[in-house]
Amino acid sequence: MTAAANSIDIDDLGARAETMIEALGVISEEPTRLVRRFLTPEHRRAADLVAAWMREAKLDVGEDALGTVRGHLAGASPKRLLIGSHIDTVVDAGRYDGIFGVVAGILAARHIARSGIPLPFSIDVLAFGDEEGSRFPATLASSAAVAGIFDPARCAQVAADGATFGDAIRAYGNNPDDIAAAAYRRDNVAAYVEVHIEQGPVLEADNQPLGVVTAIAGQTYFTVEFSGEAGHAGTVPMRLRRDALAGASEAILFAERVAREYRGEVVATVGRLVLTPNAANVIPGNVTFTLDLRTTSDQTRRDVAERFRNEARAIAERRHLGLAITQTRDTPTTPCDIRLQDGFAAAASALGYKAPRLPSGAGHDGQAMSKLCPVGMLFVRCRGGVSHNPAEYASPRDMGIAVAALIEFILRFDVGAFSR
Amino acid sequence: MTAAANSIDIDDLGARAETMIEALGVISEEPTRLVRRFLTPEHRRAADLVAAWMREAKLDVGEDALGTVRGHLAGASPKRLLIGSHIDTVVDAGRYDGIFGVVAGILAARHIARSGIPLPFSIDVLAFGDEEGSRFPATLASSAAVAGIFDPARCAQVAADGATFGDAIRAYGNNPDDIAAAAYRRDNVAAYVEVHIEQGPVLEADNQPLGVVTAIAGQTYFTVEFSGEAGHAGTVPMRLRRDALAGASEAILFAERVAREYRGEVVATVGRLVLTPNAANVIPGNVTFTLDLRTTSDQTRRDVAERFRNEARAIAERRHLGLAITQTRDTPTTPCDIRLQDGFAAAASALGYKAPRLPSGAGHDGQAMSKLCPVGMLFVRCRGGVSHNPAEYASPRDMGIAVAALIEFILRFDVGAFSR
Repeated sequence: MTAAANSIDIDDLGARAETMIEALGVISEEPTRLVRRFLTPEHRRAADLVAAWMREAKLDVGEDALGTVRGHLAGASPKRLLIGSHIDTVVDAGRYDGIFGVVAGILAARHIARSGIPLPFSIDVLAFGDEEGSRFPATLASSAAVAGIFDPARCAQVAADGATFGDAIRAYGNNPDDIAAAAYRRDNVAAYVEVHIEQGPVLEADNQPLGVVTAIAGQTYFTVEFSGEAGHAGTVPMRLRRDALAGASEAILFAERVAREYRGEVVATVGRLVLTPNAANVIPGNVTFTLDLRTTSDQTRRDVAERFRNEARAIAERRHLGLAITQTRDTPTTPCDIRLQDGFAAAASALGYKAPRLPSGAGHDGQAMSKLCPVGMLFVRCRGGVSHNPAEYASPRDMGIAVAALIEFILRFDVGAFSR
Repeated sequence: MTAAANSIDIDDLGARAETMIEALGVISEEPTRLVRRFLTPEHRRAADLVAAWMREAKLDVGEDALGTVRGHLAGASPKRLLIGSHIDTVVDAGRYDGIFGVVAGILAARHIARSGIPLPFSIDVLAFGDEEGSRFPATLASSAAVAGIFDPARCAQVAADGATFGDAIRAYGNNPDDIAAAAYRRDNVAAYVEVHIEQGPVLEADNQPLGVVTAIAGQTYFTVEFSGEAGHAGTVPMRLRRDALAGASEAILFAERVAREYRGEVVATVGRLVLTPNAANVIPGNVTFTLDLRTTSDQTRRDVAERFRNEARAIAERRHLGLAITQTRDTPTTPCDIRLQDGFAAAASALGYKAPRLPSGAGHDGQAMSKLCPVGMLFVRCRGGVSHNPAEYASPRDMGIAVAALIEFILRFDVGAFSR
């Protein structure tokens, strides 16, 4: 089937992708920045546009109770290869994160539908709406529903805008009672794959347009609070101080040092830090900060977390500070299926690209979908590794290459190997 | 004259001080916390109460254009010993800072006026109104006017509440044109002394009610900004990060380490720190923090500042961070006159206290008054070293001892030694 590659016009695919991304990029809750949260009127408009594109691509379109748009391309068997990503955004988002994966799925299915090549399996292109979690406290609701692991208790969750999740579903025009029906039957599904911008600088540094994802890193979030004693910056001698910020600074540097020891395997980030009372002439009495640990080895993540806890305790003891460490999230690693990894690598190779393997440090719908079926991901280079930012950018050429690789992957997909 | 000590009733003085402090402590701009800023109606009410106490103490009362209340006790010579402190407060203040120094001056002058002991010099008790700087950008306006170093350009300064300094003077009922007349003639003044709570924990740790101030520490304030690159906490490998907070943490620990090297001579405080964007899952792109350096040796302060600058530059270079260091204040050390120090030590000794010598890390009106005449300060122990806080507390007994020591100091004061 490699002959198919000859009929793939990468630049045409890239231009189409860019046009579609521009059209979605202007559907925003705010006039000056891109904000498109789950189950808002703008989500509705984006979903309608995606549905129109799916129809134009000759897909049968449906939508489930959580707003996931599904475009179906029937093959010889009802067994499905699922191809998806999300159309919701963070606040002040870029235009590619999630969106390009949906666009790539539609363009690949369109190419295959138009080429008339018979497929031994069916394809569903999925446009999820809750990957960023920018509206409700939890996230991945739409992919969890599709995977059959949605917890109905979540319908009581309240957004910052005051809406309950259940109300938001009804306001969107759907019924929370239908969520269970969104789940696929396991024996109907072969695998889930997703194309996504890398959101990091590794492919750019390697000068490669494509990368094969080995796993979606597990995450452990901590909130760490050091409490000392506020005091006058001029009158309390150094030896009598219990400075919460000095203790926090030691802990922050320890987290960085430990992560570096693992040479690329671990990232540790202290991204949020709040000082009390935060006045120039007052010794900090209290410092609270977040620690975000990610790695594709759950054991390593536990080890790093344990070393951090121990060091923070030692710092607090040495400095006579109070210490409270709260684990606020712990998500295990989601490995990508090795056959899907190899499939993407072979597809990239057919196009002349080596597609290095790398983990995903960011979370994705694949984390929920892995409860339903094997998952795989293909990364595409993005400029400067920038994401969650209006400056996010993937070139039309790279996007065209990624859609072409997805087409090659689909044409090579051995559905028999994924039968249960 | 040591016989005078026999007639001093320490507990009566302490009880009077406590009663006066309670009366001033309820004059506040806000119902639930103590706020009394310069030239507000509450400053007016406090000044009027102070003036009434001065009259009751048989002092002749006047007020200058910046609201400084002056209680005059005439002696054999017009040459004056000035005794003062301030009646303005920080926001959410304690009741003792500044206030007790004014109360101590009034009670000491009252004791002497009532005792009928002839004085070879005159006394002016001064109640300044702008020591805390809680209203206008600069501070010490009232003591600067008294010292003859007030810069008239300051009348154009604007407070957070929108008032210019000049407007505020007029609203208070005075005329900015009269500020120059507030200055003492140098040959009319022998010295300026001030009693103040320590605002630190040294006397409490030493179990001493009194301390003799050796100098008011000089201060250097810096604003330090490290700028790196914000990025996704999951996708940017440690080796490709330019984390502004990690750099700032190193600089903060260096400042602490250097200050400690000087074994009690230097304090360094990073009290305010602001992170951008300050999100749990974003690598900090920018960190701005303040550094407050204080020591009684100007050379040492310059040395420490220079070492800090060099280290910050080295950190920035090693981490590929941008660095901007802005010096926002540089106030030289104000030494306390050794004869005044010895005078306070002798007074304390007459009462049976050793009164250890210690620097003042906090700023005081004496910094401005030192431009007019020799200055001296007596510290009184405060509970836990706590100040600028509603929990601020000095016991009536300690206050009584401090007033008694001030009386002993006045009775021993050798005005001839302070003639120019």
